[in-house]
Amino acid sequence: MNKTYDVLIIGAGINGCSIAYQTASRNRRTVVLEKNTVGAEASSAAAGMLGAQSEMEEYSPFFEFARRSRSMFPELVPELEEKSGTAVSYVRNGMIKVADTPEEQERLARMYAFQKRAGEEVEWLQPDMVKTIDRSIGGDYFGAIYLQGDGQVKAPELTKAYAGAAVREGAEFYEYTPALGFIFENGRVTGVETPQGRFYADQIVLAGGAWSRFMPPLGEELPPLIPVKGECVGLHSKRPIVEKTVHASDFYIVPKPGGSIIIGATEREGEMGKEVSAEAVQHLLHKACRLVPGLGRASWQYAWSGVRPQSADGKPYLGQTAFDGLWMAAGHYRNGILLSAVTGTWMADLLEGKAQEQEWIDAFSPQRLIHRKEEEIIGTDY
Amino acid sequence: MNKTYDVLIIGAGINGCSIAYQTASRNRRTVVLEKNTVGAEASSAAAGMLGAQSEMEEYSPFFEFARRSRSMFPELVPELEEKSGTAVSYVRNGMIKVADTPEEQERLARMYAFQKRAGEEVEWLQPDMVKTIDRSIGGDYFGAIYLQGDGQVKAPELTKAYAGAAVREGAEFYEYTPALGFIFENGRVTGVETPQGRFYADQIVLAGGAWSRFMPPLGEELPPLIPVKGECVGLHSKRPIVEKTVHASDFYIVPKPGGSIIIGATEREGEMGKEVSAEAVQHLLHKACRLVPGLGRASWQYAWSGVRPQSADGKPYLGQTAFDGLWMAAGHYRNGILLSAVTGTWMADLLEGKAQEQEWIDAFSPQRLIHRKEEEIIGTDY
Amino acid sequence: MNKTYDVLIIGAGINGCSIAYQTASRNRRTVVLEKNTVGAEASSAAAGMLGAQSEMEEYSPFFEFARRSRSMFPELVPELEEKSGTAVSYVRNGMIKVADTPEEQERLARMYAFQKRAGEEVEWLQPDMVKTIDRSIGGDYFGAIYLQGDGQVKAPELTKAYAGAAVREGAEFYEYTPALGFIFENGRVTGVETPQGRFYADQIVLAGGAWSRFMPPLGEELPPLIPVKGECVGLHSKRPIVEKTVHASDFYIVPKPGGSIIIGATEREGEMGKEVSAEAVQHLLHKACRLVPGLGRASWQYAWSGVRPQSADGKPYLGQTAFDGLWMAAGHYRNGILLSAVTGTWMADLLEGKAQEQEWIDAFSPQRLIHRKEEEIIGTDY
Amino acid sequence: MNKTYDVLIIGAGINGCSIAYQTASRNRRTVVLEKNTVGAEASSAAAGMLGAQSEMEEYSPFFEFARRSRSMFPELVPELEEKSGTAVSYVRNGMIKVADTPEEQERLARMYAFQKRAGEEVEWLQPDMVKTIDRSIGGDYFGAIYLQGDGQVKAPELTKAYAGAAVREGAEFYEYTPALGFIFENGRVTGVETPQGRFYADQIVLAGGAWSRFMPPLGEELPPLIPVKGECVGLHSKRPIVEKTVHASDFYIVPKPGGSIIIGATEREGEMGKEVSAEAVQHLLHKACRLVPGLGRASWQYAWSGVRPQSADGKPYLGQTAFDGLWMAAGHYRNGILLSAVTGTWMADLLEGKAQEQEWIDAFSPQRLIHRKEEEIIGTDY
Repeated sequence: MNKTYDVLIIGAGINGCSIAYQTASRNRRTVVLEKNTVGAEASSAAAGMLGAQSEMEEYSPFFEFARRSRSMFPELVPELEEKSGTAVSYVRNGMIKVADTPEEQERLARMYAFQKRAGEEVEWLQPDMVKTIDRSIGGDYFGAIYLQGDGQVKAPELTKAYAGAAVREGAEFYEYTPALGFIFENGRVTGVETPQGRFYADQIVLAGGAWSRFMPPLGEELPPLIPVKGECVGLHSKRPIVEKTVHASDFYIVPKPGGSIIIGATEREGEMGKEVSAEAVQHLLHKACRLVPGLGRASWQYAWSGVRPQSADGKPYLGQTAFDGLWMAAGHYRNGILLSAVTGTWMADLLEGKAQEQEWIDAFSPQRLIHRKEEEIIGTDY
Repeated sequence: MNKTYDVLIIGAGINGCSIAYQTASRNRRTVVLEKNTVGAEASSAAAGMLGAQSEMEEYSPFFEFARRSRSMFPELVPELEEKSGTAVSYVRNGMIKVADTPEEQERLARMYAFQKRAGEEVEWLQPDMVKTIDRSIGGDYFGAIYLQGDGQVKAPELTKAYAGAAVREGAEFYEYTPALGFIFENGRVTGVETPQGRFYADQIVLAGGAWSRFMPPLGEELPPLIPVKGECVGLHSKRPIVEKTVHASDFYIVPKPGGSIIIGATEREGEMGKEVSAEAVQHLLHKACRLVPGLGRASWQYAWSGVRPQSADGKPYLGQTAFDGLWMAAGHYRNGILLSAVTGTWMADLLEGKAQEQEWIDAFSPQRLIHRKEEEIIGTDY
Repeated sequence: MNKTYDVLIIGAGINGCSIAYQTASRNRRTVVLEKNTVGAEASSAAAGMLGAQSEMEEYSPFFEFARRSRSMFPELVPELEEKSGTAVSYVRNGMIKVADTPEEQERLARMYAFQKRAGEEVEWLQPDMVKTIDRSIGGDYFGAIYLQGDGQVKAPELTKAYAGAAVREGAEFYEYTPALGFIFENGRVTGVETPQGRFYADQIVLAGGAWSRFMPPLGEELPPLIPVKGECVGLHSKRPIVEKTVHASDFYIVPKPGGSIIIGATEREGEMGKEVSAEAVQHLLHKACRLVPGLGRASWQYAWSGVRPQSADGKPYLGQTAFDGLWMAAGHYRNGILLSAVTGTWMADLLEGKAQEQEWIDAFSPQRLIHRKEEEIIGTDY
Repeated sequence: MNKTYDVLIIGAGINGCSIAYQTASRNRRTVVLEKNTVGAEASSAAAGMLGAQSEMEEYSPFFEFARRSRSMFPELVPELEEKSGTAVSYVRNGMIKVADTPEEQERLARMYAFQKRAGEEVEWLQPDMVKTIDRSIGGDYFGAIYLQGDGQVKAPELTKAYAGAAVREGAEFYEYTPALGFIFENGRVTGVETPQGRFYADQIVLAGGAWSRFMPPLGEELPPLIPVKGECVGLHSKRPIVEKTVHASDFYIVPKPGGSIIIGATEREGEMGKEVSAEAVQHLLHKACRLVPGLGRASWQYAWSGVRPQSADGKPYLGQTAFDGLWMAAGHYRNGILLSAVTGTWMADLLEGKAQEQEWIDAFSPQRLIHRKEEEIIGTDY
């Protein structure tokens, strides 16, 4: 069984699905190969905050890219919900970033200044003002910034909505169908070997998250990706406990519509696997209950983890690889949900040769870091 | 711990929650006692069709009641979704009722005539026209009626949405709090005994579904309720298989937004308990796959059951009981989801002494059937 | 549907099932009515330690009763496993009771002295010796006692094994069949009302755990039972972390065969319901990881809770109630698993009028505490 | 992180775990790499019958191999249970093979004759005698053979027991650690690339079941393996329905200790993935309920699937591959549970150069079929 397509996407995570939705909408014959099921990994483990751009302290193409993506949600979400029948729970309940050390206070102050300059809706809160924004916050802190317009989605649902909308637009999805290797013809990648047979396409997009680098036989020729496991816990409360998303230096609390509350996330570099350690549960609950004491009364639901794909310099790899016919869209690290909107449209532009933003082309090229040693580049801030 | 309220509702099924939402919205201090959790029984087991009124063949107060309820959903659903943060997946995908025997054809023809007279959007389909409405339908049949405007919701979500909106309006919910018995003072029911202590209220509403009759010491003084277990199976398909709700004489197929497909339901009179029998699974799948052959390729998800409370004459019990202070809202049988909208507002009217519809007051009074022997009334058609 | 039996047992918890096994084995026609499923409540939530008698500091009939039960397991377990086909995982891995305060040290010393006098295998461990028994124990403590012969079972499996063996011996089980009320004839309890009809029996045994007191219309005429919710968490480790059961003043760590590790249990008096609070999870993990640091690396599995039935004086109610025909076997509190063996045989003796142990008859009579106010008796140590 | 071992096994299915147990017991430093968790695929999906040898109609090395394995269970199981703490539920309840067509009757007669000659305990049952062995069997059939001594285990538990015992003997297990590729040095396979770093070993055993062939870059140099998905359903009954394992031409019914009943299994060649189709559930239930009508009353539990690795000629691949340093133990198809015992000891012998059975060495060599086209060899009977 050999099949031929215009675009073949490896990986049905949120970004693979978003790209599939856009290319299928443009009438390109699109297929997605997925080793497990839609959204089986990091995409379903995410807390769904759309405020990652708020972490930045200076202007960059990445900042603009994130801002563009955020601006797309108000229109994109109803479109996806209608086409897929899946509700995404997009709300804009605001986020408070709390400084729990003097150093963190300084960092937040820099962020505040930059965001203000960049025209973002951001407010500085003295320690005694924090409680006026969300009464549930207790504990000690050294000030905070408040991002009133910050939004969030239910990440597993958004992933399913992209996939459902893509199917509606004609894309085909093969779940439980791992890509085992690339097929080369005359130096060009023309297809993918799978247990279900060979799939051929004009353009192949590697969107496998932290698994993207396990694609023989390319190995060293693809840019480096480090898996970073994040562990989360979920609580539930029928009565509202905390209303805003609360972000501290090494954890966050995200109240979801309907009463769920997500507390995340650890960062375990180099770890894959689904286990959640006892110490992660203990640590997250301890931190969260100290900052928002009312959470102690919430009901325990469950713990889970996801493996985020970290690129070598913190920016995703978007664009053509060193191999003819092979493209890449991976390495979104902690920003995969936020960036999914623009990743879909912009990758569709790139594949059609229509992308104009040279700054982005340069910044995100998968070829920018090949053969550099991992030690050299890890830890470089974006 | 003794607490006092204006309205106390026993049972957090869909109708208890809807009443709580309405009374709390009218600033009445409202509490709901639930032996398990919100929507733990029949409300979460339902397929969520809103077309029960289409089963009727002649005019009755019950028909008007159902029609009123159906007309409330377009406005009520967004209101509940906004207040609760829970998406209800209300869609109007239409329903086809298929006649699989000549007798059923006659019955459908009578229904068609009545619905037409009553001003409903209904269409008669000759056998060879059925496929034009939904291509997936195969098999043999003797005609069908098509109800284009028929809608559906996700029943578990709608139940949670009523409850969430009620909490937002100030209602209190006590889960895992069974009502153990009534407290009488001077011949009036004034409260309820529970493991958490006594709860007092001016008006007490028994909305416990099939469990409503297990309320000592009233026993024979409450109208008869027969439990009828219904077993269902759930399938899933990424690619649409069937688009319309399809209803045959003893089973139905309900495609939900997002790809789930519910096939229901058996009717086991007198049975409670959560087990699903192997023969029920076999029977439902066999029938459904014969009518819609494409379903054989869908993925198995799971099987479940719910216990529907059947009143003695097929109409719900809504109104005051023979006991001062004690009201009832139970016995909705297979129409609990559809009727939840009007049950909430109309019971709130009744409790405030504002209900005008004398026809409904008479038709639904819980006192209409007391002391009649079950054998006499079971099976009477409405 | 009216049925008649020799013995009718209300409640398929571990003690109800053990009694059923014994009465059925003696060729008495036995039926068990259960509102939910076998072992649905406290019996399946227990950690399965068989060392409760080690908590006692002085001789009492209760001590002898516990010791008798413990001595029955080596023979009873293989018998149950063979008849039921359910493996019970009975092991004798020993228990260390650790003193984490000077007061606790004194209490342990008294226990040690008593256990020694009573002929138990018990050893006193100076602080620096604890690690020689189980290397995983870290943290500070003021000595410990070591009970080398202490055993444990998997409590859910033992409950199922009693039930399975009882079925094999001819007992009937009706799950999802709540007892709604007693049937009295000439001042004698002769049967039970249920949604499935009436069940009659010569002897009726109320073995409903914390639910035993919700049996209308007896109410105040039955001895007081207080629900005490206990929350637990479960971890897993492929590689052994801790080998002995470790018991500190307000929590314990129970390593199970196969790699599971149970940490329990909170004590929430007066609470029912299945929720587990975030603070309970945090508290149990914090305590356990401080005492056995290696547990931090174990994998999180899940959290659960059970409601233990506490009698007014800490001893179970076993024997005839004030009502002719009605017996009771409830109130085992934290000792239900340990006591299940002797509860089965001794209750079977009592029902046949063959029990000889007058001391036990007096100590456990359900009539010993009726009408005493709860305030007077709660907290009385046994 | 580079680690060095004597034996490295790829795949923690039942055969990988059994080999690890044997090599670790012989003091060889052993490591197992597993892409998911222990027993995550076919090993946990199996019904656990130990009677596969009964399918054979003539003498072969494979028959002797199977018979050897079967003979090991009575001693091996207690040993594994004791070391691992995991109960395996090994019982010998006998198996009835029913002929449902005249052709099947002839095949069974041949089997019977061969088994008899081979000294097996086997009995021929005329149609009217079948019910005397198991009263539950209804329906029509053309005779049966009865294998009184046939046994079964709980397959997921046996897999965990091998793994637990291997850990006890010093083996290391890395779950969630896929083998990404082999490391070659001087033409010899010396290690495996994984996301956790490189693992080196003197001998590497590929035991990845149906996934064994996805090991780049060897591809065509490894013998062919075809995935064959099998779908099963599980029922439960508190009261015994069927006592013997019942095997018909294209399905079987396996009653497990404790009340579970497994009905299996479809054979979908070339399919991987975990989905179970609605038609498979319908088909299995239909067939099983027709043969054992009482099953209709059993409770539905769930459906699942597993992917069995089929070799090209129906015999497993056991032995050295064409590559120095690389061994193989895969392709057990439907006999993986039965063969696990002898696979462990015999592979350990082979790795130490101690295996004597030249007949087996020839019959199972992974090099016997390389480069033969799949079309030529599929379907060849063993």
